[in-house]
Amino acid sequence: MMDKSPLAPKSFPNLPQIAGVKMAVAQTGMKYQNRDDLLLMCFDEGTSFAGVFTKSATASAPVLASRAVADSGSIRAILVNAGNANAFTGAKGVSSVEACISALSKTLDIPADMIATASTGVIGEPLNADEITAHFAALAASAPASWQEAALAIRTTDTFEKGATASFTINGKNCVISGIAKGSGMIAPDMATMLGFIATDAGIAPDDLSDILKRVTNDSFNAITVDSDTSTSDSVYLAATGQSATLKTKDDLVQFEEALRAVMISLATQIVRDGEGASKFITIDVTGAVSEASARRIGLAIGNSPLVKTAIAGEDANWGRIVMAVGKAGEPADRDKLAIAIGDIAITEDGQRKHDYDEAPVAAHMKGDEIHIHVDIGLGDGKARIWTCDLTHGYISINADYRS
Amino acid sequence: MMDKSPLAPKSFPNLPQIAGVKMAVAQTGMKYQNRDDLLLMCFDEGTSFAGVFTKSATASAPVLASRAVADSGSIRAILVNAGNANAFTGAKGVSSVEACISALSKTLDIPADMIATASTGVIGEPLNADEITAHFAALAASAPASWQEAALAIRTTDTFEKGATASFTINGKNCVISGIAKGSGMIAPDMATMLGFIATDAGIAPDDLSDILKRVTNDSFNAITVDSDTSTSDSVYLAATGQSATLKTKDDLVQFEEALRAVMISLATQIVRDGEGASKFITIDVTGAVSEASARRIGLAIGNSPLVKTAIAGEDANWGRIVMAVGKAGEPADRDKLAIAIGDIAITEDGQRKHDYDEAPVAAHMKGDEIHIHVDIGLGDGKARIWTCDLTHGYISINADYRS
Repeated sequence: MMDKSPLAPKSFPNLPQIAGVKMAVAQTGMKYQNRDDLLLMCFDEGTSFAGVFTKSATASAPVLASRAVADSGSIRAILVNAGNANAFTGAKGVSSVEACISALSKTLDIPADMIATASTGVIGEPLNADEITAHFAALAASAPASWQEAALAIRTTDTFEKGATASFTINGKNCVISGIAKGSGMIAPDMATMLGFIATDAGIAPDDLSDILKRVTNDSFNAITVDSDTSTSDSVYLAATGQSATLKTKDDLVQFEEALRAVMISLATQIVRDGEGASKFITIDVTGAVSEASARRIGLAIGNSPLVKTAIAGEDANWGRIVMAVGKAGEPADRDKLAIAIGDIAITEDGQRKHDYDEAPVAAHMKGDEIHIHVDIGLGDGKARIWTCDLTHGYISINADYRS
Repeated sequence: MMDKSPLAPKSFPNLPQIAGVKMAVAQTGMKYQNRDDLLLMCFDEGTSFAGVFTKSATASAPVLASRAVADSGSIRAILVNAGNANAFTGAKGVSSVEACISALSKTLDIPADMIATASTGVIGEPLNADEITAHFAALAASAPASWQEAALAIRTTDTFEKGATASFTINGKNCVISGIAKGSGMIAPDMATMLGFIATDAGIAPDDLSDILKRVTNDSFNAITVDSDTSTSDSVYLAATGQSATLKTKDDLVQFEEALRAVMISLATQIVRDGEGASKFITIDVTGAVSEASARRIGLAIGNSPLVKTAIAGEDANWGRIVMAVGKAGEPADRDKLAIAIGDIAITEDGQRKHDYDEAPVAAHMKGDEIHIHVDIGLGDGKARIWTCDLTHGYISINADYRS
């Protein structure tokens, strides 16, 4: 067990239960001993559902099966196991998922096509469905689990459990969103996956739910990077039980989207704060790009650059590496219009270092554990924010000083 | 000064002088003490010239100026300095290059538009042309330098000098290609650049020279990656003096291209062998992709993956990370057709681990310092070969345990 990340929040937040959601956890012992590794989330009838998934061409069996459930827009149960990703497990992987869904459908007396699954852990290891289905009766009879217990059950190499909540008011009725996530590096030693499970008691039509989830994912889970590696299992699920207010107007949906954005950005940045070996939390703002997509690609080129990330680990105000990363992004940029600032201190002008540049305040900023980089491209209105962490000896130790 | 890379060749090869090429070296003391850091290559009249350059949007002043010389197809001199990249130096950077070219044109009595330059070193530091031009008279009067002396003069953080040669016969006449390169990481601590300087005594028309250089660069310098970072200064120059045989037929050009490919692959892989912190030299063959471009992108996704590179550093036969890297490449792939082999030992079939997979011989291969990965995508005829090195604590130490 790794030490808790120095960038972890002080404590797990107080996450309200969501009316219409019941959770339960169990220990399979498949990989981890003396901790929960199985999570069942059950939803009342009439719950809307949306999901976003990894774009990996070698996506895991649970991802392949759950895409259809997300497309249907309805959910009754989500089953999650930690320790085995059931990825690159061929036909057997698919039949394992089918066996779990079939057994869960019988145990809970719910339609099989309203059950989504997610698995995280070792890639390429066959998953024995019996080791999971054996716990269904106990899960169904179990006392309700808290969000914190759920967040603990889905960890792999995470050093802390991750949760976030927000609320908003529709027609005088209070609505709540609660969510949990796991991830620590896009993919950890032999372990896969960034997963997120979010529920709200608001009522939202599946099409709206899906559109909003895609947009907010873009600004949150898709705006973070630890090591540029993408897992075979990344999935974010969003369920809306509708047991508080039903969202009807455009303004209702905007309120929901803003609250969801706060929850998902909190979860996503907690994953960065648990990045393997991370000692600095880095926010990269790109403005003035020719488009939002261009700004995002420039931000990711900076956030994924090993040389930028190692410079920050070394507390080195090496802005030349940021110039390099902007240059390699493959996006429109003009050297003479580029404005780079670190910790709000402007460094460049007219395609060169400012004549009165003083490194002392930048060097002082680099010693903190929250680093802010702002790059203005000077060409347009496109902007994006990316979060990442530094690249340290800790990352190498976790990923190389290790034998399978 | 870093220790010589454990992957370095035993010795510098014996590089023949090229008729029509004269080289000289000098010490400016601008950054390095007690070593040469300035190289002048002079070419007889009638020498053809081609160049390939970084695609960086923040390319250095020498790159911007030398592109026009390469387009002209003629060359009389190349000037190279190590220690200051003259990149992100604004209008002053451009005028420094102009001042050097103008002074060299007068000293050597050659046209200014037949002089190319290349600079490697710190980004963002103004370059004082006087510190370079002061040495032109001495360079012009100096005794000829060997290729090895030239290779030593252009180093920045390189731990060894890099050279390669090949010969071929046209109409009974022996033709020679000799070349040198520098680079150690795409961009080293505050230092930029991969540079290559190659000359042949064969006679080749500029258009043919340029076409061949672009093709061979694709198979050599563009097929290597140390850390996915691209410098602002990358340049490869190729000069053909025509003092042995003139290449006329298509068959002549094919012979030249094959010999050039051998030289450039040797130089490119020597750069990988000098990769910052490298302890393993990795060859990645991708076959069966839908196109050559697709195969290259899959190969680079594997070669740039921090998780693949750290697994190899840890001598861990973690083929699941190769599955992940193929999946994230964004290229057509079918899990069930993917065949992964390490050290020629087949690992996967039908989208899963082979039933009789024995990790012992793969683990033994991982303990060597030459690692071979073969991924067959199973969809088409596209293939590519990529070279890279592992990602170790040494890389972090060089790039993070450092203050500017």
